[in-house]
Amino acid sequence: MPRQVDHDERRRLIGEAVLRVAAERGLEAASMREVATEAGVSVGLVQHYFASKDALVLFATGLLRERFERRVASAAAPSTQFDGIRAVLLAFLPLDGAGRLEALSGMAVFIRALNDPGLAGRYRYGRERIVAAVTERLDTAVAAGEAREDLDTELEAHALLAVVGGLVPDLLFGHLSSERALRIVDHRLGALSAGPDVSMAAR
Amino acid sequence: MPRQVDHDERRRLIGEAVLRVAAERGLEAASMREVATEAGVSVGLVQHYFASKDALVLFATGLLRERFERRVASAAAPSTQFDGIRAVLLAFLPLDGAGRLEALSGMAVFIRALNDPGLAGRYRYGRERIVAAVTERLDTAVAAGEAREDLDTELEAHALLAVVGGLVPDLLFGHLSSERALRIVDHRLGALSAGPDVSMAAR
Repeated sequence: MPRQVDHDERRRLIGEAVLRVAAERGLEAASMREVATEAGVSVGLVQHYFASKDALVLFATGLLRERFERRVASAAAPSTQFDGIRAVLLAFLPLDGAGRLEALSGMAVFIRALNDPGLAGRYRYGRERIVAAVTERLDTAVAAGEAREDLDTELEAHALLAVVGGLVPDLLFGHLSSERALRIVDHRLGALSAGPDVSMAAR
Repeated sequence: MPRQVDHDERRRLIGEAVLRVAAERGLEAASMREVATEAGVSVGLVQHYFASKDALVLFATGLLRERFERRVASAAAPSTQFDGIRAVLLAFLPLDGAGRLEALSGMAVFIRALNDPGLAGRYRYGRERIVAAVTERLDTAVAAGEAREDLDTELEAHALLAVVGGLVPDLLFGHLSSERALRIVDHRLGALSAGPDVSMAAR
């Protein structure tokens, strides 16, 4: 009986190689040949599964989204809306090796998307979904009395996502410790929560 | 009498060409040849002024810093510490064509710095100077009763700079309007200012 080939696993192996090359040298460098070398397979095999570099990039960005969603899901089950928001925000930060790979390859996707309308559209769609998810959690928190009732929740969602996005470069360079970055995130969340003393909650 | 050659102006012309190439296609693409073409000069002239690509990149990053400082200085003379901080924060945002060029070429420098310790050191130095400047302004604002006295000013400086850094991608893609981005910055600054009603000041 011939050995069963797991095509999904092979695709995934190649897609992960794209992410590693992109993280190290950008997506410009992720040619079929380089990706094949990184994945330890033949160029022919890469071409068998992916008709073009665009197809390869598209698949790799899907993997990146999966990894992000897995990271959010792997956080402890949130007991409050703020815990849930915190899990989303922290999933953006390069706090370990896997997070670093994701942040760097995500940056490479962003750079390519600047000149690729199709990829830009996907990027935008993903971004809108995340803003909507954080806004919804904030709305629920306001309704439940967890968050301050005067919040412009959509604006706050954008601002929270901007903070974590802006912390990424300093974390990648090691200019900012993980501990300090987490403190900034918690500080921002604390300032949004309802409490008898807002200025204390913000500490 | 031979025509006087303005060497500084020629260097600057070449350096500006580096920034344009970097903004469009990244610093990988900024070879001596590409830069010469972009600047409309010969490769020999570029090589006459810059011994290596590293020298070229270093000079271009200096230009970028100059442009940033000019942008901060060109804001209306700040009447309060918060106005001064706002001018620094806004100088990071791609709110016009020049700002877009600076944000994109700054991103290209950042990408290169990830694999270039010398450039990373300069990047870090610049970052530390800006964090220190914003922290100092916040400290002065606290002392003057302009800002809330319970602020961890260095943490807030990092958080403010993270917000503007994180707004850049959404502005570049046009996912976020300039108006909305400015509202987020003002909202953040409002939340730090001393006032009879913090929640109102934050609106």
